[in-house]
Amino acid sequence: MSALEIQGQKARAASAILAVADTARKNSALAAIAEALLAQKTEILAANSEDMQRAKENDMRESLRDRLALNESRIKAMADGLQQLIELPDPVGEAVSMAKRPNGLTIARLRVPLGVIAIIFEARPNVTVDAAALCLKAGNAVILRGGKEAISSNTALVRIMRAALKKGGLPEDSVALVADTSRESARELMRLNDYIDVLIPRGGAGLIRSVVENATVPVIETGVGNCHVYVDEGADLEMGVSIVANAKCSRPSVCNAAETLLVARPIAADFLPLLIPALAASHVELRADAEAKAILGKAALDATEEDWATEYNDFILAVKVVADLDEALSHIARYGTRHSEAIVTADYARSQRFLAEVDAAAVYVNASTRFTDGGEFGLGAEIGISTQKMHARGPMALKELCSYKYIVKGDGQIR
Amino acid sequence: MSALEIQGQKARAASAILAVADTARKNSALAAIAEALLAQKTEILAANSEDMQRAKENDMRESLRDRLALNESRIKAMADGLQQLIELPDPVGEAVSMAKRPNGLTIARLRVPLGVIAIIFEARPNVTVDAAALCLKAGNAVILRGGKEAISSNTALVRIMRAALKKGGLPEDSVALVADTSRESARELMRLNDYIDVLIPRGGAGLIRSVVENATVPVIETGVGNCHVYVDEGADLEMGVSIVANAKCSRPSVCNAAETLLVARPIAADFLPLLIPALAASHVELRADAEAKAILGKAALDATEEDWATEYNDFILAVKVVADLDEALSHIARYGTRHSEAIVTADYARSQRFLAEVDAAAVYVNASTRFTDGGEFGLGAEIGISTQKMHARGPMALKELCSYKYIVKGDGQIR
Repeated sequence: MSALEIQGQKARAASAILAVADTARKNSALAAIAEALLAQKTEILAANSEDMQRAKENDMRESLRDRLALNESRIKAMADGLQQLIELPDPVGEAVSMAKRPNGLTIARLRVPLGVIAIIFEARPNVTVDAAALCLKAGNAVILRGGKEAISSNTALVRIMRAALKKGGLPEDSVALVADTSRESARELMRLNDYIDVLIPRGGAGLIRSVVENATVPVIETGVGNCHVYVDEGADLEMGVSIVANAKCSRPSVCNAAETLLVARPIAADFLPLLIPALAASHVELRADAEAKAILGKAALDATEEDWATEYNDFILAVKVVADLDEALSHIARYGTRHSEAIVTADYARSQRFLAEVDAAAVYVNASTRFTDGGEFGLGAEIGISTQKMHARGPMALKELCSYKYIVKGDGQIR
Repeated sequence: MSALEIQGQKARAASAILAVADTARKNSALAAIAEALLAQKTEILAANSEDMQRAKENDMRESLRDRLALNESRIKAMADGLQQLIELPDPVGEAVSMAKRPNGLTIARLRVPLGVIAIIFEARPNVTVDAAALCLKAGNAVILRGGKEAISSNTALVRIMRAALKKGGLPEDSVALVADTSRESARELMRLNDYIDVLIPRGGAGLIRSVVENATVPVIETGVGNCHVYVDEGADLEMGVSIVANAKCSRPSVCNAAETLLVARPIAADFLPLLIPALAASHVELRADAEAKAILGKAALDATEEDWATEYNDFILAVKVVADLDEALSHIARYGTRHSEAIVTADYARSQRFLAEVDAAAVYVNASTRFTDGGEFGLGAEIGISTQKMHARGPMALKELCSYKYIVKGDGQIR
């Protein structure tokens, strides 16, 4: 057996215990983790500084180094997140439906954990604790495979979590870290069908593609967001400016940020000049089609075909003038990644068509795409945004980390 | 573009129309299909007799030939099935939840179709109509890839369905048949990520394995059932006999039939002799471990390790004496395929432990595993039994052929 298979087997065994652990026991283990993280922050920060040192030596980009860095307040935030999770209702054991059949059988559909969840993620070490804790609260064992950049931090965090779990009365194998950060270990994890029920990749388009291509275990794709805002004829232009600026600038590195603005031809000449000052503060680079360029002038570069398909994750916005809603819908159908799409409109019929016809996890009328988030949706937490249609779509929280089973009670029924 | 990619693209376009088609339109298309099947039964039977002729030439097994054969009553059954489907509620458009957030956003989670569903299945041509109709009712386009044995029947059935769809006001590309029945076409279908949202394989363990191994599109595994009945100490022995005989003999070829009997040591010597006459009528072959063999004598053969892991789909039953519930649970955890598992017991605490601890789609107390079925569960229909935990588990009907999307209505909210 490989090291990973042994981890898988241990996780599977832990998941059987977690599946029947009651809420109090899971919560007290989460509390023990929160306490341990705070108590051992010196150890965590020391491990993190090893990662930071390596990052510096390897000339890691400033923005990535920021994502990698831990400090007292980030450790405090992890512990606070655990506290909030403790307060959320336990999704496990709820009867989603229950009925007595004509033959006297009682059939209930009960929410149960998925089992063993594997998560492959990139450099942010706070994901290690957040993701593990969400899985645990939903009764799942979790196998974490973080990037090599954060291996020292992740090793420390997982060691602390495992010790706290044991102290809190749950199997330490409920949380495991894949020590080997090679590409091969990721590949092997993607094919560990005997031990993994669901694999959730969290990262850039390259990681997602590799997982979709190589995984034989069930996968939930997350996070690629080429999101659009369409400003319709007759829309409140001020509202349009405010929504576009927010969707683009409030946090461009995340998947629910807007990447392309579509603007209806009849209002383009009025709307685009209003937009320029709103984006200027963030130095947003505009890449426009010929028609928008004619209005924007020197404020914009020329967009290429590639721009329509690009998730910039940066202060760049593609801009295209469209004839009407129909052209906006077909542009979104062609280039969108089914994440979050918004229309700004004052027209009832077009708002309804947009909601009905756009195929995406979250479809907005007169609001920013930036709201696609577990917290904003009232789910209390999130482990990622699913962009596939199977199992879960959009923000995934505790219920989405569950499956269900049918329990059937009889008194001798045969068929 | 390959022939399959073109079919995929057309199915994707059809799915956009189906997604917004109202219930009346979908039902009238289903009615048109039912009518056309009855009106063109001569054509269907002629096509089927080509398949039957080939089957005879190729020395196909009698039982498989029976599955392949169509006749007037089977065509009538297809049409009746469509009628029942028309009467079922439309799963699409229901708000699964809806709430106003503190910032004034209204967020609803609406059930929507999955999109394009691909189904790879083996020789039964009635699956062609059943599966396509279920997908349609749930607003999905479907790409069917049946076996070469049934290609003439399937071609006729799909031609009739497509013509009826057109007549009923829906795109004919809502249903497509992959004409190429080679292994390569199946492989290509499994990797058509741009056009397929979910792939459902329906067939034996070999097909399922090939799909899991090769697919890059999201898959719902179905149908492999190595199901157990555990007869507990103190159980009503007559009830045990009746449930075991039913679970084994009523239809051994299906996935919810029992394959292994586990019997508690303290009652084994009383129970097993009672079972022999109940299984004799079906000439069930028993394969027993040493302890059960000592009781059953010449009525049983020796079981090997392989027997515990085998889904016989035949009149064969593996029999093992276990010490107690704990041993039964670990045997099921080790060899079960998470399909359907039953305990026969009179003990409350052990019934509860069995329900909680067995990890399977359907867990039974004092009833036959044979009830794991969409019709029996009150779902009205079924497209297969999922044995994975992601998306859907157990019988999959109309709701399980859906995804959801969030629709968010605001009046200018930004984050």
